[in-house]
Amino acid sequence: MKQLNNEQLKVLKSHQQNIGVLEIKADLKIENRKDLSLAYTPGVAILAEIIKEFPETKNNYTMSGKLVAVITDGTAVLGLGNIGPISGLPVVEAKALIYKDLAGINALPLGIKQTNILETVATIKNISDSFAGIHLEDIAAPRCFEIEERLQRELDIPVYHDDQEGTAIVVLAGLINAAKVCGKELKKMYILINGVGAAGVAIAKLLHAVGFENLTLLDQQGVITSQTVTANKWQLEAASGTKRAVSGESLIDAIKGQDVFIGVSVGEILNSEMIKMMNSRPIIFALANPIPEIMPKTAVEAGAAIIATGSSEYPNQINNILVFPGMFKGLLEQGIKKITFELEEKIAQAIAGLVKDPSKNKIVPNVLDPKVVKTVSEVFKKNL
Amino acid sequence: MKQLNNEQLKVLKSHQQNIGVLEIKADLKIENRKDLSLAYTPGVAILAEIIKEFPETKNNYTMSGKLVAVITDGTAVLGLGNIGPISGLPVVEAKALIYKDLAGINALPLGIKQTNILETVATIKNISDSFAGIHLEDIAAPRCFEIEERLQRELDIPVYHDDQEGTAIVVLAGLINAAKVCGKELKKMYILINGVGAAGVAIAKLLHAVGFENLTLLDQQGVITSQTVTANKWQLEAASGTKRAVSGESLIDAIKGQDVFIGVSVGEILNSEMIKMMNSRPIIFALANPIPEIMPKTAVEAGAAIIATGSSEYPNQINNILVFPGMFKGLLEQGIKKITFELEEKIAQAIAGLVKDPSKNKIVPNVLDPKVVKTVSEVFKKNL
Repeated sequence: MKQLNNEQLKVLKSHQQNIGVLEIKADLKIENRKDLSLAYTPGVAILAEIIKEFPETKNNYTMSGKLVAVITDGTAVLGLGNIGPISGLPVVEAKALIYKDLAGINALPLGIKQTNILETVATIKNISDSFAGIHLEDIAAPRCFEIEERLQRELDIPVYHDDQEGTAIVVLAGLINAAKVCGKELKKMYILINGVGAAGVAIAKLLHAVGFENLTLLDQQGVITSQTVTANKWQLEAASGTKRAVSGESLIDAIKGQDVFIGVSVGEILNSEMIKMMNSRPIIFALANPIPEIMPKTAVEAGAAIIATGSSEYPNQINNILVFPGMFKGLLEQGIKKITFELEEKIAQAIAGLVKDPSKNKIVPNVLDPKVVKTVSEVFKKNL
Repeated sequence: MKQLNNEQLKVLKSHQQNIGVLEIKADLKIENRKDLSLAYTPGVAILAEIIKEFPETKNNYTMSGKLVAVITDGTAVLGLGNIGPISGLPVVEAKALIYKDLAGINALPLGIKQTNILETVATIKNISDSFAGIHLEDIAAPRCFEIEERLQRELDIPVYHDDQEGTAIVVLAGLINAAKVCGKELKKMYILINGVGAAGVAIAKLLHAVGFENLTLLDQQGVITSQTVTANKWQLEAASGTKRAVSGESLIDAIKGQDVFIGVSVGEILNSEMIKMMNSRPIIFALANPIPEIMPKTAVEAGAAIIATGSSEYPNQINNILVFPGMFKGLLEQGIKKITFELEEKIAQAIAGLVKDPSKNKIVPNVLDPKVVKTVSEVFKKNL
């Protein structure tokens, strides 16, 4: 094990102090027989009978009506790759902590063993009665697509994959203000999405669904179109929204004439020369973690009008924390079961709208601005 | 729905107030960027890497090291029968509440859909990395036997079924003091166990394992012995400890010459006449819920030296709450993975030992006596 620095030692200490960063809190006290009969038997028998007759009342009488499961199989954790569900636990626990601290949402971290897709789906379905929503986290493409699709079809609670919808929504929020700052017409912008994993596919699907016309998708093999034989069905579906794209074209060719570069892959694959080949006032979202596709300084020097990353070290942090706490707050408060593209666009607009005067260094709000959770959750209110 | 009384309305209100009786509590505050980097990224990356290298450290750095899952499939809930996992949720949530209030243990209620045994086992295994222990609850026999056996064999965390081991331990605790009060030699007593579901089988197995010599098992078909063709393999195993028993004999015959009647079935099947056929100073544990096998008053009038029930309305409440909070506290504190018969006997002795002067109306301690949790948890300390 490498030597740890002081910051890292502080992380260890803070997560070890109480064995993790979450606890179960009891809302009823049991101090005498009377308390016990209210909290447990014979009291709970009447709850069991009522729920037996009216199953939906379990959402009023048990914590299952408010608890979000944050589930990972550890196949794609942070920038660390497939490190397994046990190693993925600190991330889902941190997400659950964020839910509580930022939005008051009760969320439970769950690691789930890596099995075949059908068994993973069956496992989550088998425990789903205990939860009011499912937040999938750090699940690799393409398995994440089928797992989420099946769960969304087969469960009647909201199912959300942070690495897909979360990223797509916050990218759209950033694009809305970036277009404003650069004086570009939002949905007419030429956009290159580099990386067609969970995030890339979800971004393309959302942008296409809400009317963006000029998308290009690209991975290590080159540009993906609906003709690309090596692409999986979800990539092909995402590529159905691309128009100008030439199948197999490489990054250096595909970047020509783009207004926006959205990087959701790995590696420093973008350079100054490429930025110079883009349209005027190019917008760069270099979202790879932990190292962006191009260093912000280099991008600006090459003429980028706006540079955003996933990191808190630079301005314009494109981070899913802007989305999920407020979104689940709104979903649960309003009893909404499905997240549509229309709702996703409205969330993005709400997030973008929180920046009063967008500028090149401020296209999204601060992730810890308390107005974010409030504003995002209220999107759902307006939709009733 | 029938009219609810005031007590029942109070139950509804208390469980509805916060949507259930449990919450997730955050142990770290996220108020600024620094907090966020400690609680989430980049902080958690180092935890993920450490856990990847040393998987067992997840028990130090994530809540999975302290969280007990209280799991039901709702196949045998209270006296209500197979009402399903959704209707079973209030009971597992109440158990989780008891864990926290009585022992400070973090426990999570989980309902699991009713599927075949292998899928149930697979589901629990698939999520088991998120937990430090498994508490099975309200699962019907015989499926509970195979589910528990497989989980105990395949997981390296403690797996406990409250309706089996919990009941068996507290029954043994009661027997220890009942024998004292009645001046009988504990392990030589003739004991009739009526009911060979989860509790009956577990009681027989524990008593046999710790040296009780004279057990008789009986269900609606009559006495079960190792020759009974209709018995399942777990019942046969439990019956292997019976000596005097005659296969197929009915209750009215089998009760003759018994020192103890342990009822863990349903229905008021015991009468005065039967008690009079037992040995002198007969001990009656009428544990059926909600209605005991015989009313305490009737039993005493018929000559019962001791009568115990599962209800808090009478003296001598034989209740699993005496066992599980302290037991899991001890297991988790000491990092013990398996509960052996030897440990179970020691827990029973510890519970019995808390009653200073056992008498006919006091063979077990009060379930809310704080010494119970402390004493039971310390059993494990002594065993290191």
